[in-house]
Amino acid sequence: MGPSAQAIAAYDPVQARAMDREDIRNFRSWHKAAAHRARQAGFDLIYVYASHGLTLPMHFLSRRYNQRTDEYGGTLENRTRLLRELIEDTKDAVGGSCAVPVRLCVDELMGPEGICAEEEGREIIEMLAELPDLWDVTVSDWSNDSMPSRFGEEAGQEKYVSFVKQVTSKPVVGVGRFTSPDAMVRQIRKGILDMIGAARPSIADPFLPRKIEEGRLDDIRECIGCNICVASDMTYTPIRCTQNPTMGEEWRRGWHPEIIPPKENADRILVVGGGPAGLECAVALGKRGYDVTLAEGSEELGGRVTRESRLPGLSAWGRVRDYRLGQLSKLANVDVYLVSRMTAEDVLRAEVDRVVLATGASWRRDGVARYHRLPMRRLDDAAVFTPEDVIAGRTIRGPVIVFDDDHYYMGGVVAEMLRRQGLEVTIVTPAPLVSQWTVNTMEQPRIQARLLELGVAVLANHGLVEFGGGEAKLACVFTRRCTTLPAASVVMVTSRVPHNELYHQLTASAAHVQDVGIKSVDCIGDCLAPGTIAAAVFSGHHYAREFDRPRDDAVAFQREIAELGTWSPAGKSSS
Amino acid sequence: MGPSAQAIAAYDPVQARAMDREDIRNFRSWHKAAAHRARQAGFDLIYVYASHGLTLPMHFLSRRYNQRTDEYGGTLENRTRLLRELIEDTKDAVGGSCAVPVRLCVDELMGPEGICAEEEGREIIEMLAELPDLWDVTVSDWSNDSMPSRFGEEAGQEKYVSFVKQVTSKPVVGVGRFTSPDAMVRQIRKGILDMIGAARPSIADPFLPRKIEEGRLDDIRECIGCNICVASDMTYTPIRCTQNPTMGEEWRRGWHPEIIPPKENADRILVVGGGPAGLECAVALGKRGYDVTLAEGSEELGGRVTRESRLPGLSAWGRVRDYRLGQLSKLANVDVYLVSRMTAEDVLRAEVDRVVLATGASWRRDGVARYHRLPMRRLDDAAVFTPEDVIAGRTIRGPVIVFDDDHYYMGGVVAEMLRRQGLEVTIVTPAPLVSQWTVNTMEQPRIQARLLELGVAVLANHGLVEFGGGEAKLACVFTRRCTTLPAASVVMVTSRVPHNELYHQLTASAAHVQDVGIKSVDCIGDCLAPGTIAAAVFSGHHYAREFDRPRDDAVAFQREIAELGTWSPAGKSSS
Repeated sequence: MGPSAQAIAAYDPVQARAMDREDIRNFRSWHKAAAHRARQAGFDLIYVYASHGLTLPMHFLSRRYNQRTDEYGGTLENRTRLLRELIEDTKDAVGGSCAVPVRLCVDELMGPEGICAEEEGREIIEMLAELPDLWDVTVSDWSNDSMPSRFGEEAGQEKYVSFVKQVTSKPVVGVGRFTSPDAMVRQIRKGILDMIGAARPSIADPFLPRKIEEGRLDDIRECIGCNICVASDMTYTPIRCTQNPTMGEEWRRGWHPEIIPPKENADRILVVGGGPAGLECAVALGKRGYDVTLAEGSEELGGRVTRESRLPGLSAWGRVRDYRLGQLSKLANVDVYLVSRMTAEDVLRAEVDRVVLATGASWRRDGVARYHRLPMRRLDDAAVFTPEDVIAGRTIRGPVIVFDDDHYYMGGVVAEMLRRQGLEVTIVTPAPLVSQWTVNTMEQPRIQARLLELGVAVLANHGLVEFGGGEAKLACVFTRRCTTLPAASVVMVTSRVPHNELYHQLTASAAHVQDVGIKSVDCIGDCLAPGTIAAAVFSGHHYAREFDRPRDDAVAFQREIAELGTWSPAGKSSS
Repeated sequence: MGPSAQAIAAYDPVQARAMDREDIRNFRSWHKAAAHRARQAGFDLIYVYASHGLTLPMHFLSRRYNQRTDEYGGTLENRTRLLRELIEDTKDAVGGSCAVPVRLCVDELMGPEGICAEEEGREIIEMLAELPDLWDVTVSDWSNDSMPSRFGEEAGQEKYVSFVKQVTSKPVVGVGRFTSPDAMVRQIRKGILDMIGAARPSIADPFLPRKIEEGRLDDIRECIGCNICVASDMTYTPIRCTQNPTMGEEWRRGWHPEIIPPKENADRILVVGGGPAGLECAVALGKRGYDVTLAEGSEELGGRVTRESRLPGLSAWGRVRDYRLGQLSKLANVDVYLVSRMTAEDVLRAEVDRVVLATGASWRRDGVARYHRLPMRRLDDAAVFTPEDVIAGRTIRGPVIVFDDDHYYMGGVVAEMLRRQGLEVTIVTPAPLVSQWTVNTMEQPRIQARLLELGVAVLANHGLVEFGGGEAKLACVFTRRCTTLPAASVVMVTSRVPHNELYHQLTASAAHVQDVGIKSVDCIGDCLAPGTIAAAVFSGHHYAREFDRPRDDAVAFQREIAELGTWSPAGKSSS
């Protein structure tokens, strides 16, 4: 029986081949040379890595991958041979000058087909118990290890790794998207781990350990488990974090995660809109020392993150708001007003020097996104709903079609919510997979499995071409052949329209704003261009960091410059 | 109605926004500055690019994308404004020191929803007729322009671009995967084009124009239209070409496409197997001046390319063989023997110094690939077939299931062939799309459309778990829920097993080969590790170039070295 869809996400047409003895010798010598270089480069820890289904020693451990008949295959002792040799080689190479931890997958979460913590996972650690300087234990594949918050709880690896300290005297580190200090302390007190590993929480807040040490728990930007950081890896783009807009910009833009330069002038700044962009902008401006007024039209702050956190599995989204509310409460120079929808006249009367609009966006009702570039004709408007309607609890009659031409999480989560309400739901998408883009956040197979298990029907590779009279006409993206499905309602998860009316009113006449002394009016976040929550937070932070710097046409960050032919280990330089 | 699946292949969750006047001003000034830099860098031609659905001026031209209400939207004249301005800006920037061509999409191949050569495509050229120095005209999107040979003929753009020379006095260049000199000359003689554009044919043979000029037509490595070059772009990997193994290695490895260093010694070399790897190896060794014996077991040369060129749409694959046979015919130092299957004893008696095995691979029958890592149980072996069986014309009874866990072209093409023979065919794949990896060669939507139109049933996201007694059991990759389909036969398109028996026989005892003076025995191509035809050709060439060089552990090519912070246009250097 096969692995999850996750494990077959790559379809490279070039096969591997079985390694022969010379290959193994070469691999060991390259590994040893790499350890030696790492030591020369000054590293303190040099890992031997056998996890995530990613490395050769892990493939050798696996009965699925390792079908060798020599001394590296067959018994678990034989399958462990390469890992043992690599640990010994590495210790040999570093000669006690730095520690050699081993990262090991103790469970593949696929039952008896894979490595299990009760069987071979435990036996491997027993065999090698005292050999590494540190055990770093985890589960595979990567999507199981870096479980998104929508599908797994904090400390979710405890049951798999709790045996490890019983079989080794070496220190043990483990992960599990630990975001709360309580959960971390519990792991230590219970004797499950000696050290807490936390990659994503450290991306969200690199100063997490320091803040715990100093008792500044409210200052922690808690990871929301959205895996947008992982998506950067998958899409070959600079890393982004929903909670931490400085992530990946520490060197490129010189943005320190905790230190922000003091204000440059005495500008009073009005931020209109208290969603993720407006909140971040107000907090960052406030920390710089500017006098800020934050005006929110509704009764609550958080905007889309507050609304979306009500959807199934997305409660952690609310942390984007919570962290910033905590920071605002400490900033005497930021005034927050709720139920304060601003008209252009209100803005002109606000006696501020600069205006920042963070007025968000709304989901469209007319079908426009990728499949339709122009509004749909033949659409029964009265029975068309948006994700906002679903969140607001508007009455939607079944059978309902969720037309997803957005492809991130919203279509799948809206379908899940409606199905849980008992409606007959079909999710229709022009993409081959439900929530196609979540392949990049490693959520996709779990989303599609959950929907299918809940009884949501999936019609992939189809576009919605007509809806009315109780039925929807759907066309195959390959052949354009049409199918008809009964449908009382359609939820459009397509594209979004920025709320930029206020911006246009204010900027229609430059004289108006200049007359009252307003130096600039800018949009940030979804009202500038609808995007991810991470993009909105980044946009707000970016404004706060850079609005008072001279604007020029230069590239906004420092670059890596590639030089050709200046270095080659074999001395093959050509220039 | 929507675009093809091709056009919705990207699902980035960040939306664009409409440009305002400042955005347009900025864009124009950046474009002009770029033209200025290009001139400083010494370029002769500086393009303004409005094609492939890729650039802003093309989006402005399009009624689907451009919904502006200002002077840049509405009428075609307005939609052309940005393009006109960019051409003028660019000419202004370069001041007559270099030519300014325009690359324009004249047809999007989507009927009245897009730009059509009979209407707006023609009108745009009429409006701007004498403004550029050169018209480079083509069709969009990229998959229509770079049409693979499986789906389009040479000179396939003629009907769209033939009007252009009637409406401008400027020279006109066009593309259309021109690979034969006759077709090129015909375009010029008929007055359709003034110059022939040919990117993929120049990748396959950078010296194409020179060879035509010198009348060396047999020496042209003719592009096979497989688009493996495009796949490098899509997969962020170094470019490869099926016909030209030196592509992308000119600088990295110092491999000239036409010049190969003379032999280093007097080694006599036996190449066993005349498929793509063996042929390329024999040709390249022969050009170096080595004495080569090429022994092929069957009655014909070409191996898999000869076999696969019999499949529907793949006749161009045969060019991989044809070019090399043409070269071999000029190499007196390469002896070719057909019907000469070599045993280990034959090899030991061959009186050679080196042995190269290019013995290929066979498709497995046991289901092992990605979905099954271990051989399937419950498989009715007697009714299981492989792609070789299909090509050989073995009798296969319907209904037939093609189980594709390979994901490149073979599964789709085998399903097509069987369906054309009148069988009832279902293609089952654990991937979300048929021939999933061909997304990278821009063939995927055409493959799935063709299969659906022929009446092949598609069951995506499913694995084959059992087959026997006239039915097949299939499991959903998300839920593992099972479905049953009637099936008299199964064609396994899974992974391949290298033919390396001869290698193991020869290397079982090093003394045997040393005793007869053989210095080395190596595998190349599919018998080393089954892969693409391009990988096999590369492997053969690589051996021929480098077997006589000293082997060391150094990186085998020159690298680009990234330097941090040494350059920034704004003088923001930090180190």
